[in-house]
Amino acid sequence: MENLSFNEYQLVYNFFSFTFAAMAAGTLFSWLNLGSVSASYRPAMVVTGLVTFIAAYHYLQIFISFDGAYSAVDGVVSSTGEAFNVTYRYVDWLLTVPLLLIELILVMKLSSSETLNRCVVLGSAAALMILLGYPGEISTDLAGRLSWGLAAMIPFLFIVYVLFFGLKSSIEAQPIEARGLVSQACWVVVITWSFYPVVYFLPMLGFESAGVAVEIGYSIADIAAKVGFGILIYMIARKKSEAEGYIAK
Amino acid sequence: MENLSFNEYQLVYNFFSFTFAAMAAGTLFSWLNLGSVSASYRPAMVVTGLVTFIAAYHYLQIFISFDGAYSAVDGVVSSTGEAFNVTYRYVDWLLTVPLLLIELILVMKLSSSETLNRCVVLGSAAALMILLGYPGEISTDLAGRLSWGLAAMIPFLFIVYVLFFGLKSSIEAQPIEARGLVSQACWVVVITWSFYPVVYFLPMLGFESAGVAVEIGYSIADIAAKVGFGILIYMIARKKSEAEGYIAK
Repeated sequence: MENLSFNEYQLVYNFFSFTFAAMAAGTLFSWLNLGSVSASYRPAMVVTGLVTFIAAYHYLQIFISFDGAYSAVDGVVSSTGEAFNVTYRYVDWLLTVPLLLIELILVMKLSSSETLNRCVVLGSAAALMILLGYPGEISTDLAGRLSWGLAAMIPFLFIVYVLFFGLKSSIEAQPIEARGLVSQACWVVVITWSFYPVVYFLPMLGFESAGVAVEIGYSIADIAAKVGFGILIYMIARKKSEAEGYIAK
Repeated sequence: MENLSFNEYQLVYNFFSFTFAAMAAGTLFSWLNLGSVSASYRPAMVVTGLVTFIAAYHYLQIFISFDGAYSAVDGVVSSTGEAFNVTYRYVDWLLTVPLLLIELILVMKLSSSETLNRCVVLGSAAALMILLGYPGEISTDLAGRLSWGLAAMIPFLFIVYVLFFGLKSSIEAQPIEARGLVSQACWVVVITWSFYPVVYFLPMLGFESAGVAVEIGYSIADIAAKVGFGILIYMIARKKSEAEGYIAK
């Protein structure tokens, strides 16, 4: 990140802390509600909690790394010389982005062979997307950022295609009470994920404070894509459990 | 905070530690009692515990920030130059204040469409109230404090209106054993929340030690509004579980 004003420092510092708290709360929400859904949907809820748990861990590390990289004394912010570790985000995404698609597949309760197949294919595409985006994120020239970013769009478009066309018959086989929510969940994936490339390409506009905007932007996108999406998965699991006559005891 | 005497330093330091302990205890109370209420009321108890969990995290951070901002050596208190981060409170409230209203809605056990609708409307009003209060809290002039504070009163009054009038028929539909407690819970929200604007406007009186009074005042208000209110939610959940013939096993 470029030279930070005190207000920018405060904003980024508090946003990292806020995102950690939101991820930790989301994790506990998913896991403490395991008994609120029938056994068929608990694996989906476990994975939903894992996504926010992994993110909570990484946001704590990002927060600590930021705290170590900058010092604010008497209202003046300076670099300490320690590097702010941007790689935490990509390590996080490498684990959580495939798991996000897996929680969606799990809550759909497909046949076990289809579940395995979809999880492997979508999970691999998601991991490939992150691996291709990383060299662009740490690239110092904008051409590098652009070309790796565009390469990462290919697996992203493949995932969009599977969500809207590949899963069509599986969505239509969902119980009527949950069908709308499942199709909504596919839309939420595409909409929340679309926010990431926007943030990714922000530094290409070359404005001041682009580094701050990237950190805040990714944090907002992560909360929407992980906690927000997780609440939707819980609602689907609840609706389907009720439709199947499950009453939590 | 202004220059602190040793006694003031001790008071604030111990009050932050006390508030952390109270929030952590409240969290464990809610979650360990999940099995003491029937399944219908567990989501309310999960959220009640999330509120105090998020607050416990922030009070720990507030405590650490205070410890870093001041040093007390040989009975003399001095600033270290590191800022005491007042923003933690607002980050906390942004998450917990909407969740406080959501725990009340959840324990009422309304239809799923009314639950979703009430949670979104009341939660958004609560978040707006916090977002409007923040610029006033960090404002250096009293006119700024006053005008943002008054703006934040608008969503607050809307929430009061919904609690007393909008929810009237939903409260009347509660089982007779719990009706009194639910209506009491609405009163507790309004009374405990009214304490915050009083604390907020304290610095306008311009007395010495106003900063200390604000920190202590907010901490007391937070314990009443989160732990105290949480115990009331538990009592409602318990009464309704008993009325429905649920016997904890």
